[in-house]
Amino acid sequence: MAPPSDEFAYIDHVRRRAGTHPRVPLGIGDDAALVRFPEAAECLVAADMLLEGVHFTMPPVSPRNVGRKALGVNLSDMAAMAGTPLAAFVSVAFPRDRVRELCGEFDEGLRELAAVYEVAVAGGDTNTWNGPLVVDVTLLGEAPATGPVRRSGAQPGDWILATGRFGGSLSSGRHCSFEPRVREAQILNNAAALHAMIDVSDGLAADLHHILEESSVGAVLYADRIPISEAVAELADGKSALEHALTDGEDFELLLTVSPQDGRRLLEQPPVEVLLSHVGEIVPDNGLQIEDAAGNRSPLAPHGWQHGFGTEKP
Amino acid sequence: MAPPSDEFAYIDHVRRRAGTHPRVPLGIGDDAALVRFPEAAECLVAADMLLEGVHFTMPPVSPRNVGRKALGVNLSDMAAMAGTPLAAFVSVAFPRDRVRELCGEFDEGLRELAAVYEVAVAGGDTNTWNGPLVVDVTLLGEAPATGPVRRSGAQPGDWILATGRFGGSLSSGRHCSFEPRVREAQILNNAAALHAMIDVSDGLAADLHHILEESSVGAVLYADRIPISEAVAELADGKSALEHALTDGEDFELLLTVSPQDGRRLLEQPPVEVLLSHVGEIVPDNGLQIEDAAGNRSPLAPHGWQHGFGTEKP
Repeated sequence: MAPPSDEFAYIDHVRRRAGTHPRVPLGIGDDAALVRFPEAAECLVAADMLLEGVHFTMPPVSPRNVGRKALGVNLSDMAAMAGTPLAAFVSVAFPRDRVRELCGEFDEGLRELAAVYEVAVAGGDTNTWNGPLVVDVTLLGEAPATGPVRRSGAQPGDWILATGRFGGSLSSGRHCSFEPRVREAQILNNAAALHAMIDVSDGLAADLHHILEESSVGAVLYADRIPISEAVAELADGKSALEHALTDGEDFELLLTVSPQDGRRLLEQPPVEVLLSHVGEIVPDNGLQIEDAAGNRSPLAPHGWQHGFGTEKP
Repeated sequence: MAPPSDEFAYIDHVRRRAGTHPRVPLGIGDDAALVRFPEAAECLVAADMLLEGVHFTMPPVSPRNVGRKALGVNLSDMAAMAGTPLAAFVSVAFPRDRVRELCGEFDEGLRELAAVYEVAVAGGDTNTWNGPLVVDVTLLGEAPATGPVRRSGAQPGDWILATGRFGGSLSSGRHCSFEPRVREAQILNNAAALHAMIDVSDGLAADLHHILEESSVGAVLYADRIPISEAVAELADGKSALEHALTDGEDFELLLTVSPQDGRRLLEQPPVEVLLSHVGEIVPDNGLQIEDAAGNRSPLAPHGWQHGFGTEKP
C-alpha cells in the first residue's frame, strides 16, 4: 500500500481489506461491530497488549511480525481453552514519526495470520502519538461443545504433556513468528479428556505453576524429558539448557494434563504432527519439583518471566 | 487498597473485587473469559484506546476519572447502537514510576461506572513500562431485538435530534466525567424507529458527517437550535459559542435521526429526562449546511477533532 496520509485513510485501507465474514454481519465502520453467535453459544474472550520496548523491539523484530505476534498471542490464549477464534478487535497507537513506515506492514502481518485461522478483523481503534508502538488485541471465539479447558482441572496422577520444544524463543525471534497451537488444541480436545491446559508465555515452570495454583495440586517435572529447542544451543550465558527451557518463556506451546490412560494413548498414536512429550506428573502435594534421571527430586521455583512492577523483558 | 507490590498482586486485587455476573461464568484468571449469550444472540463489540497526553493529562484529570472515561467512551459507543453493555476487557500499561499511586484509583473509577451499568469486568491484560498510561477497553454487549441502530439509516426528510448540550467538554473536564447515554438510547429505541444514531466524540459537525457519509445523504443544521453547554461561556478565545458547540467534541451525547412524525412525538412528550432537541434535518443532497435564524444557508465544514497523523488533542 501507499503510506496513508492520516488515520481515516489507514482505517479506510483496513476496512476495504477486511472482506466479509458470515459470522460478522457488521464490522469496521460504525460505533460497534456485530458478531453473531448461534443459539446457546458461549463466547470466549482473550485480550493481550504488546508494548514496544517491553514485548518487542524493532529491529530486530519487523513491523510485520509485530502484527503477527499481536494476534498470535491471543490465538495462543484461545488455543489454551480449546476454543475456535472468530473475530479480532485491534487497538493500536502508532508513533507519529514512524506511522507511515509501520502501519502497512503491521496490518499485513496481522492479516496474514488472521486469514490462516479465518479470523475476521472486525474493529478496534487507531491512534497516533509521540510514544512507542502499542497494540492491544481482543479476540472473540467460540468455546468447544465440551466447555472450555480451564487451568483448574488438573488431578493427582495426571500426566503432564507438552507440545513442541522450549527455550530460546526471545533470543531466536521465535516469540514473534511462532505458530499458535489452535488446531492442535482442538484435535487434542477431540481425542481425549483434557483436564487442564495453558499456553506457555511466562515460561514452562511459571505457567505450570498457574495450573497447580488453580487446581490446588502439585507436580513433578522429569528433567530428562523436557524437549529443548535448538535455539538454546546457541546461547552461551552460563545457564543450563534445561534452565533456559524451563524459564525463558514466550514458547507459546501448550501444557496440558490428562489421565495416564489418555496420556499413553495420545503418545502411542499422536493425533497431531507437532512433537508431543510426557514431561511430568500431577501429585497431590502442593509445590513443584524436578526429578533427575536418577530419580532424585528437588524443589523448582516457579520463576520465569517476572511480572514485578520493576522488570522488563530483554 | 494498599499499593500492590507487583502485577500479580494488582490482578489478584482486581480479581477479588470482580464479583460474579450471571452471564460471565468464567472471568479473570484463565487464558480467556467466557461470556454467555442466550440463543440466537447478537454480540456487539466496541473498542476504544486512551493515551495519556493525547486523550487526557493528569492533572487536571484524576486517575479515577481516567478509569471512568476508559469504560465511559465504550459505553457511549454501545449506546450509539442502542445496545446493552455486558462485559468489559481492560488492557492497561501503567508507567512504572507511578503505578502504585495510579492503579488503585484507576480501578476504582472504572469499577464505579461498571457497577452503575451492571457491566462485568471480565478480563484484560495488565502491564508496566517506562511509557505513559495507556488503557484499551473492549466492551461486549447485546444488540437490541430490533437490531443495532447504525450510522447508515438516515433518510431525506428525517429530523435530526440530539441529547444534552454541546461544547466546552475538554476545557471543563466533562470529557472524563460524562454520563454515557446508555439508558436514554434504549428508551428512545423503544419509543420510536431510530433511523441512524452516533455518539458525539469527534464533534457535532464531524460526527453528523459520519452519518451523512454512511447514509449517502446531506443535512441542514439550525444554528439557533444547537443546545450550547454552559462550559462554553467561560471560554474567551475568539471562537463563537456556536463554533465551540459544533466542533469541540467529546460531548458523548447522542445524535439521531427519526421520521418527522416520530420526532414531533418525541419532543412533545420526551421519554427521557435529558434535554432532547431538534437540531436539523436530513436532505437528499450531499453535504452539510447550517441555516441561520433568517433562513440563510451556508456550507459547514465537517471539522472537529482532527484525526490527521500529525495532530493531538489539547
